[in-house]
Amino acid sequence: MIPQQILQQIDNNRQRYVEELLTYLHIPSISTYSGNAGDIRRTAEWVFNHLKRLGFQGGIEETDGHPVVYAGRCPHKHQPTILIYGHYDVQPPEPLDEWVTPPFEPSIRSGYVYARGATDQKGQLMTYLKAVEAILAVANELPINVKVLVEGEEEIGSPNLGAFIRKHVAELSADEIVVSDGSQFDANTPAITYGLRGLSYLQVDVHGPRVDLHSGSFGGLAANPIQVLAEMLAKLKHPDGTIAIPGFYDGVLELESWERQEMASLAYDDGAVKDYLGVNELIGEPGYTPLERKSARPTLDVNGIWGGFSGEGAKTVIPARAGAKVSMRLVPNQKAERISRLFKDFIQAITPPGVKVSIQEFHSNDPVLVSRDQAGVQAAARAIEIGFGKAPVFIREGGSIPVVSLFKEILGRDTLLLGWGCPDDGAHSPNERLRLEDYHRGIRAAAALMYELAR
Amino acid sequence: MIPQQILQQIDNNRQRYVEELLTYLHIPSISTYSGNAGDIRRTAEWVFNHLKRLGFQGGIEETDGHPVVYAGRCPHKHQPTILIYGHYDVQPPEPLDEWVTPPFEPSIRSGYVYARGATDQKGQLMTYLKAVEAILAVANELPINVKVLVEGEEEIGSPNLGAFIRKHVAELSADEIVVSDGSQFDANTPAITYGLRGLSYLQVDVHGPRVDLHSGSFGGLAANPIQVLAEMLAKLKHPDGTIAIPGFYDGVLELESWERQEMASLAYDDGAVKDYLGVNELIGEPGYTPLERKSARPTLDVNGIWGGFSGEGAKTVIPARAGAKVSMRLVPNQKAERISRLFKDFIQAITPPGVKVSIQEFHSNDPVLVSRDQAGVQAAARAIEIGFGKAPVFIREGGSIPVVSLFKEILGRDTLLLGWGCPDDGAHSPNERLRLEDYHRGIRAAAALMYELAR
Repeated sequence: MIPQQILQQIDNNRQRYVEELLTYLHIPSISTYSGNAGDIRRTAEWVFNHLKRLGFQGGIEETDGHPVVYAGRCPHKHQPTILIYGHYDVQPPEPLDEWVTPPFEPSIRSGYVYARGATDQKGQLMTYLKAVEAILAVANELPINVKVLVEGEEEIGSPNLGAFIRKHVAELSADEIVVSDGSQFDANTPAITYGLRGLSYLQVDVHGPRVDLHSGSFGGLAANPIQVLAEMLAKLKHPDGTIAIPGFYDGVLELESWERQEMASLAYDDGAVKDYLGVNELIGEPGYTPLERKSARPTLDVNGIWGGFSGEGAKTVIPARAGAKVSMRLVPNQKAERISRLFKDFIQAITPPGVKVSIQEFHSNDPVLVSRDQAGVQAAARAIEIGFGKAPVFIREGGSIPVVSLFKEILGRDTLLLGWGCPDDGAHSPNERLRLEDYHRGIRAAAALMYELAR
Repeated sequence: MIPQQILQQIDNNRQRYVEELLTYLHIPSISTYSGNAGDIRRTAEWVFNHLKRLGFQGGIEETDGHPVVYAGRCPHKHQPTILIYGHYDVQPPEPLDEWVTPPFEPSIRSGYVYARGATDQKGQLMTYLKAVEAILAVANELPINVKVLVEGEEEIGSPNLGAFIRKHVAELSADEIVVSDGSQFDANTPAITYGLRGLSYLQVDVHGPRVDLHSGSFGGLAANPIQVLAEMLAKLKHPDGTIAIPGFYDGVLELESWERQEMASLAYDDGAVKDYLGVNELIGEPGYTPLERKSARPTLDVNGIWGGFSGEGAKTVIPARAGAKVSMRLVPNQKAERISRLFKDFIQAITPPGVKVSIQEFHSNDPVLVSRDQAGVQAAARAIEIGFGKAPVFIREGGSIPVVSLFKEILGRDTLLLGWGCPDDGAHSPNERLRLEDYHRGIRAAAALMYELAR
């Protein structure tokens, strides 16, 4: 049980912990833009230096992509070891003009800090660093061994993390693995996540005429790449919104009836979700509730589309090419590799004459369902109750955390998924934010977890 | 019949005429971009000063949009009057990275001048100015009265030209109206155009969630604006490529059998067109030849599409909105206003729940079919034979020249449509060009036309 003085120390330093988070949020560590490589490195160094100051030993290790920060403070022979995973990279901030304040100039308004990375995942990782700091300040030593692994490629699908983990199996071995890269069930209900969706992400480029053409002189001669692309995207779904790629649903693990009952019992407020999204209707697969659809059913979304003239006014052009980014969220027991192959086969099959299509595959990862009976789950539940003042509910989340399946596969361990954010924090959106109250309670819960896991 | 010395004068000054064209092409008079308003004004002044130096009287008149240049040199009481129409504005040059040399730094390569506006329409207008100059240099006076009207809004649909013409009916009255804003039938076959397609141009914006959303957390809850847009665009066409908007084909004037025979007799080389376009198949409405489809059948093309993330790599986002620009090329006797209304009604009818759609209408103009028996046609045919060394064929063109229907409606006159360019000049495309040989022959034909029209 965590000593009361440590919680007191966390409460007393609340303001300073926020200020330190702001300096971390300031660095534009966008992993998908090659132009930000320097910022990525600076951020890795920021994290590593922070760990060094907390007495951790380790280093910044190069990969084929962005570097990985790894460090540990393991003073105990007979206490368990926890591995804390985080990522220091963030999503691109676009569209920039929708941010009330610039994405990399963190701003505090009405109890939230607004910045790209606030909730995903810089703020959530920081709770563990500040928990360690508070424990050391009061108790001089951690109650368990702590290892920290922070990568810089989570937002691009962690392409090099598997190799890193394989290379460092011994150094990374731990009794418990914890990741805080998600959210509570709602603003008043902390949660432990036991399921995550997987992801297949691809880009389709349609190549038509050699150059952009005048639609007057050439309309009626050449296939229009935008039209072709639109028709192909339309064919990806049936009229009822289900996905039309042959074989897509094969092997999908249906929800257990106890899961459906549990989900139904959670106070999921469709009206509040509609208000938050600003839509007059929630749209999705027939036969499932919104909560089931977003967490336990596979989905397909076009994430971006482009082609031709998108400027001010009018230009009468038949474009030479058009493209779209398409991603599919997967559920157990779909396999990302198989789904990506089915997608490619289907696109090839429906490509009409007069155009050429190329498909590029970005990251993919498998869905995850972790055991609710694992040793650390009860400890985590107690720690959350200490930190948040309320027992957690158990949920499945719609997003993907690629590292969880890597840990399972390579280290043979399930992961504790403890989200400190809120569903309306706006991860990946403009005006991403983190509630300062959640940051503070997250630090308390992270500290409590270390004591709950101590034998 | 034009005096031989004038043709000699044109031949002798060939190089200088090209150099003067380059200065005209240098000004980025893009009418659709508000940021180019200063360039638009400079270009109007350039044209007016050029006319002043040729002894024309007139001015630059303001409109609700870009200014109109109007000037005349009318020394004769008993000779006919010709009104020459042109436009000094150009299409946007994007995509910029496909230009071999910058669009507003005219470059001469292998007998062509490359620049935005080279063929559409700065180069073609210049042929008349240089013809006037050559005639005046040799004969001291023009054989007929010449009026010149040059607008700056052709590429955005001439929204203010109708008002201008209505206001100046008397000053613009003429026995013949001539427009050179198109092309020959092919690189070896000059042509007189007797038909033009009309245009309806609209923009569709689909509004979904309030902000961009994380596709993991929200995939399965909200309608995706890109998916919705793609499905709506797909519904605009039947599987065979015909347009599915109810009532779209009502009243379309079918090709006469003599027209189909005449078109079939023209040496239209599908293979060469495929090579030029860089496509392996020509695609269009079943039951019509490519030449018929591109000149005498209505078409629908998506000219641009946008939404979500189009940057490097991957971003898992459900965008807040998506949009597309769609234009329809119309043929006699379709009415642009009615077609735009049908389009809007159809889009509204197929808008699914969960999104809002807004439609913006850009320019529209009616299709044109001009008489081949009008007085000036035979004079134009003889002038073309003098200028190009070959008698013209009669064709219908796929593009739109909005002013032609305005002239018919307000001044009650058909227009002589004499295109000096080539079909592969790349109007509206990157690397737009004009063959210097065509520029030269156009000046000769323009000068000859003035003598052929003299009584």
